[in-house]
Amino acid sequence: MQFQLTPEYLELLRKAIGTNDLKFIMEQLKELHPPDIAEIFNELDLEESKYLYKQLDESEAGKVLVEMEDDKREKFLASLTSREIAEHIDNMASDDAADVIAELPDSVQDEVLSHMEDSEQASDIVGLMNYDENTAGGLMATELVRVHVTDSVRLCVRELRKQAEEVKNIYTIYVVDDGNKLLGLLSLKSLLTTSLSAKVKDVYNPDIISVKTNTPAEEAAKIMEKYDLVVLPVVDSLGKLVGRITIDDIVDVIREEETEDVQKMGGMEALDEPYMSIPFLGMIKKRVGWLTLLFIGESFTATAMGFFEGEIKKAAVLATFIPLIISSGGNTGSQVSTLIIRALSLGEITISEWLNIVRKEIKVGLALGIALGVLGFLRVAIWSSFTDIYGPHWKLIGICIGVALMGVVLWGNLMGSLFPIILKRLGLDPAVSSAPFVATMVDVTGLIIYFTVASIMLRGIIL
Amino acid sequence: MQFQLTPEYLELLRKAIGTNDLKFIMEQLKELHPPDIAEIFNELDLEESKYLYKQLDESEAGKVLVEMEDDKREKFLASLTSREIAEHIDNMASDDAADVIAELPDSVQDEVLSHMEDSEQASDIVGLMNYDENTAGGLMATELVRVHVTDSVRLCVRELRKQAEEVKNIYTIYVVDDGNKLLGLLSLKSLLTTSLSAKVKDVYNPDIISVKTNTPAEEAAKIMEKYDLVVLPVVDSLGKLVGRITIDDIVDVIREEETEDVQKMGGMEALDEPYMSIPFLGMIKKRVGWLTLLFIGESFTATAMGFFEGEIKKAAVLATFIPLIISSGGNTGSQVSTLIIRALSLGEITISEWLNIVRKEIKVGLALGIALGVLGFLRVAIWSSFTDIYGPHWKLIGICIGVALMGVVLWGNLMGSLFPIILKRLGLDPAVSSAPFVATMVDVTGLIIYFTVASIMLRGIIL
Repeated sequence: MQFQLTPEYLELLRKAIGTNDLKFIMEQLKELHPPDIAEIFNELDLEESKYLYKQLDESEAGKVLVEMEDDKREKFLASLTSREIAEHIDNMASDDAADVIAELPDSVQDEVLSHMEDSEQASDIVGLMNYDENTAGGLMATELVRVHVTDSVRLCVRELRKQAEEVKNIYTIYVVDDGNKLLGLLSLKSLLTTSLSAKVKDVYNPDIISVKTNTPAEEAAKIMEKYDLVVLPVVDSLGKLVGRITIDDIVDVIREEETEDVQKMGGMEALDEPYMSIPFLGMIKKRVGWLTLLFIGESFTATAMGFFEGEIKKAAVLATFIPLIISSGGNTGSQVSTLIIRALSLGEITISEWLNIVRKEIKVGLALGIALGVLGFLRVAIWSSFTDIYGPHWKLIGICIGVALMGVVLWGNLMGSLFPIILKRLGLDPAVSSAPFVATMVDVTGLIIYFTVASIMLRGIIL
Repeated sequence: MQFQLTPEYLELLRKAIGTNDLKFIMEQLKELHPPDIAEIFNELDLEESKYLYKQLDESEAGKVLVEMEDDKREKFLASLTSREIAEHIDNMASDDAADVIAELPDSVQDEVLSHMEDSEQASDIVGLMNYDENTAGGLMATELVRVHVTDSVRLCVRELRKQAEEVKNIYTIYVVDDGNKLLGLLSLKSLLTTSLSAKVKDVYNPDIISVKTNTPAEEAAKIMEKYDLVVLPVVDSLGKLVGRITIDDIVDVIREEETEDVQKMGGMEALDEPYMSIPFLGMIKKRVGWLTLLFIGESFTATAMGFFEGEIKKAAVLATFIPLIISSGGNTGSQVSTLIIRALSLGEITISEWLNIVRKEIKVGLALGIALGVLGFLRVAIWSSFTDIYGPHWKLIGICIGVALMGVVLWGNLMGSLFPIILKRLGLDPAVSSAPFVATMVDVTGLIIYFTVASIMLRGIIL
């Protein structure tokens, strides 16, 4: 029932394409769904793709095109004439069509639009292309079924039958007034369960949730999630019905949003493209900026340590614990900043609760600091029973390492919990490089904590 | 149109509850949707909640209960009798009802079930509670409209009208045979656009995608995403229709899945609970394990540096660059492991492409390494023009830092790209602590690279 593209199956298909085995190919295409066929296209070369594409029926061809990987589709469309592209566009939903056309070079866009048979669809597409892709307008399709509030239910059913061919997934019928202002909705279920002679105005549901064309896509996603909607109408600034967003587009928005967040948290710019399609220079550009910034931040560690060069010369053994101590603070900070960023983005916490969060994280940081501090002391104690590396004062060194660890972990936990909240308060995205940024800050300050503790505890003994 | 819970509004409501201003409260409740009301409940205390809950009408009360935060609901239900809970459960969808009952203490569960009026619903719920919550069975609801393949369309419409009251969101009617085996579907659209005298067997769509009760929830989510489905039927091992999953549940699965991934990547166990509801000890438990493991891994840096104690004593200036060099490698590794984990989880890459990925990342790592290497040299050169800290051999020290940085960054990039792939190959979750784990490995190996480069380049000069 579910399709899994195996290398063996791909080989079979390629062979059939090579030998022009139409019977086998048509059998396969009949069994497969457009997203499966698109997966196959992603693996074929251009000639094979063109051959296979010719065998698809018109309505399926458009769907396959939409589901293909962006760079594959780009290459494939570049090999077609504007007239051929226009034919496929005619069979797509308006939102998909606008997305596909927007990817084409400017000159080709105009040609394709002029070749389209359905001039109403063409002007819808031009309209959709004007919206920012990160807004509700950029997500919506214009195909929908609308009825007038003064119509009868019988007329609705007739209208629905007429439009059913054109509008793919109908879940809801929208009710508008004379001026196309959105008044409410009629579910298909209510159409089926109401008398045909009833008037729309007596049976429609006026309690409707809608968004504006300029509502951010992420907000539209949050609304559909919160109210469990499958489709969301979009109105212009005058309240006129201009389109609808379906849940499948929202699922894509959520995935993209999450990918951006994860990549930002990993210490780089969001890629905005699949890993394999991003070119070498593009990849460098997305990564080198933050690496440089983090490098500059981290280079203060060299400055800080410069002040303690004398101590390091006297007791090189202290230097050997530097990576351990500062990375423990950094790891703790990364953990908590991840927690806070996620909780903020899911709306589990708000920045007004910062004091509660700080109180909670001071306790947690103290507990984690004690745990790692004890581990640090044990590390020194155990090694001392095997080697002489820490000398006669190993107990004092061990306690010093333990205390420093406790301080650095507590400090890292506090900074890691506050930093995303401060970013958010400043109107910035808390996900931006938080984990590596927090780690860098904790590295610099952690060194100072460590050497200060050591200076106080070991002065006159080994320092 | 969209509800925003402000402190002022909350204050107004609380006052109305305190003064028993029923008129105002009923007006407000009429305007609000269940998810909005649930948001208000999350902010009220127990007495206020109980008062407000009594004012809700029956069908709304169940929906509000489902949308409330888990710990709020738990406390609220604990204040009700089993009989009261049973009344609310009667009005819930079977999947929500099963989730709510599963949270109750065992003894209360049986009492609630025995008090339910609708015994069919009660036995459905008991059935649903047997499924693992991370499978399709754990997500599905049993309410659906099914027709027999030999029925007429007219009978379907009649059946639909009869069941419409009970089944909330109807998008599809399922067609089954004598033995309840799932054969295909009829969309509501096709019901409306087909003659009433047609036979189901002549108009239904046999091309249906379904999952089994034991299909993992994440796989069900992937299928609904790929095929743009709003509802997905669930069959048992014999192919019999037992339930359906709706897209709103899948959106929740996606959010949870992403949260788990992000938290694991942040170097801890997934919380599985909202940030604010997890207790102190639970939080420590989720975090201390990985911190300890990372600590043990990182403590090899102390061991590695022990071997170079002589060098550090002779040239303490070298030690001051340690945090800078190893963290640059760690940051690079975190970036690339984040990229690879994300691309793997979105299906953009597969582990069979590992050689391509390594080739790509060697080039990227080299470019990033050269960039940071040059920066490292510049850091030394610029400081040298102001201070005497690096002495007469500052050029050589600068080159040594630059070369070490290049090597460590290239190495970090390579390890960061390979580690998630290796985890996945071993059947483990690539997200598990990858970024901090890679950083720890790079810290240890980076130190060795750095001191080896320094020993070769500076031997006889400052070492």
